[in-house]
Amino acid sequence: MCEKSKVDVNARILERNDSAAAHNAAHFREHGVVCVNLMGSPGAGKTAVLEATARFDRGKTRIAAIAGDLATDNDADRLKAAGIRAASINTGSACHLDAEIVHRTLHHFDLDGVDYLIIENIGNLVCPAVYDLGQAVNVVALSVTEGEDKPLKYPTMFAKADLVLLTKVDLLPYLVGHVRVPAIMDSLARVMPRPNVIAFSAHTGVGVDEWLQWLEQRKPAPMEAQFA
Amino acid sequence: MCEKSKVDVNARILERNDSAAAHNAAHFREHGVVCVNLMGSPGAGKTAVLEATARFDRGKTRIAAIAGDLATDNDADRLKAAGIRAASINTGSACHLDAEIVHRTLHHFDLDGVDYLIIENIGNLVCPAVYDLGQAVNVVALSVTEGEDKPLKYPTMFAKADLVLLTKVDLLPYLVGHVRVPAIMDSLARVMPRPNVIAFSAHTGVGVDEWLQWLEQRKPAPMEAQFA
Repeated sequence: MCEKSKVDVNARILERNDSAAAHNAAHFREHGVVCVNLMGSPGAGKTAVLEATARFDRGKTRIAAIAGDLATDNDADRLKAAGIRAASINTGSACHLDAEIVHRTLHHFDLDGVDYLIIENIGNLVCPAVYDLGQAVNVVALSVTEGEDKPLKYPTMFAKADLVLLTKVDLLPYLVGHVRVPAIMDSLARVMPRPNVIAFSAHTGVGVDEWLQWLEQRKPAPMEAQFA
Repeated sequence: MCEKSKVDVNARILERNDSAAAHNAAHFREHGVVCVNLMGSPGAGKTAVLEATARFDRGKTRIAAIAGDLATDNDADRLKAAGIRAASINTGSACHLDAEIVHRTLHHFDLDGVDYLIIENIGNLVCPAVYDLGQAVNVVALSVTEGEDKPLKYPTMFAKADLVLLTKVDLLPYLVGHVRVPAIMDSLARVMPRPNVIAFSAHTGVGVDEWLQWLEQRKPAPMEAQFA
């Protein structure tokens, strides 16, 4: 088939997705929920970020999560064990979540009492950046073990990120000579319009407080404050 | 658009890809080249595997490489610096290589004197498994830092793998209590029809010999031997 048909099909898929994403965004606003699209490579530590958040915060922050994977409910099970309200989406063969599959999950997902809904996307640095889910912000988990130049190789993902959580920084002492944090920061600065990075370790708790403060700043101001 | 049109379009894309892949496969056979589709997550260490192969083998094995990335020629540059004949493919926004883009690169790629052509695919555990490039074998680099359950979460990738290179095993002492090799092996055994794993470290050279022996066994027998 010709390239034009392929482009038309892709445009129509994205158009339909954007419409569903707008619907999801309205749903989140109505419930006063800040929705985070949490992306990153397979094994970047996305689930571990949420587990650590619950553990070090002792459940004070009201976080819920939807965990996307091609197969297994492993991540949702881990999140529930950490005390986080969670549901799974299994995409089968799709390499990203889309707004419609999130919409269908929201039908059965209780947002009462939730401040932040974290949607843990499929582990993939490419397509998840293209499909809007109705989120307020994009966060990318980038593990120091992935090397220095991933932002340059996957520029769209990092260009669209509002925040990068630089994960597994506890492993840095064992990567000396191979991975330099200034080189990662330099890569990020080349593709992110406003580089915004928190060094994070799910094991030691480094970065959890800063991440929670960042989330807190994403909350919409109360009506009174807005008109004060 | 309806799901049927989407499925039809995907089927036609894959059909056209398969035809180009058959063409590539014939090209590799004519040149006596074993083509390897090397896949894995971003940062799994695919390029480091090839650098280590060249370094520890001291250039005895005749390896060439085509490195796929959305952007940058970083990997091809690293491979050339390691003494490996190499070319880049930049896909822009595509999350996988396909047979046609490889075909176009082969027009300008000298295979004379090459025994193994390694195509380093886009870092992604999903779509690269679906698009045949004309390769003889699929190899997946899986880093121990990615955790224990990636094979279960990305089953198609590992079900189609002829070999898994379990990379960065030099970091295992620092992952004690978090990542257990037997748990990774168990995950692989559940999805790979014939689990075949080599523990690999690009830094120490562990696994390089075994990997080279495995490659050697992929070479077609000479005509005389086949009819002896």
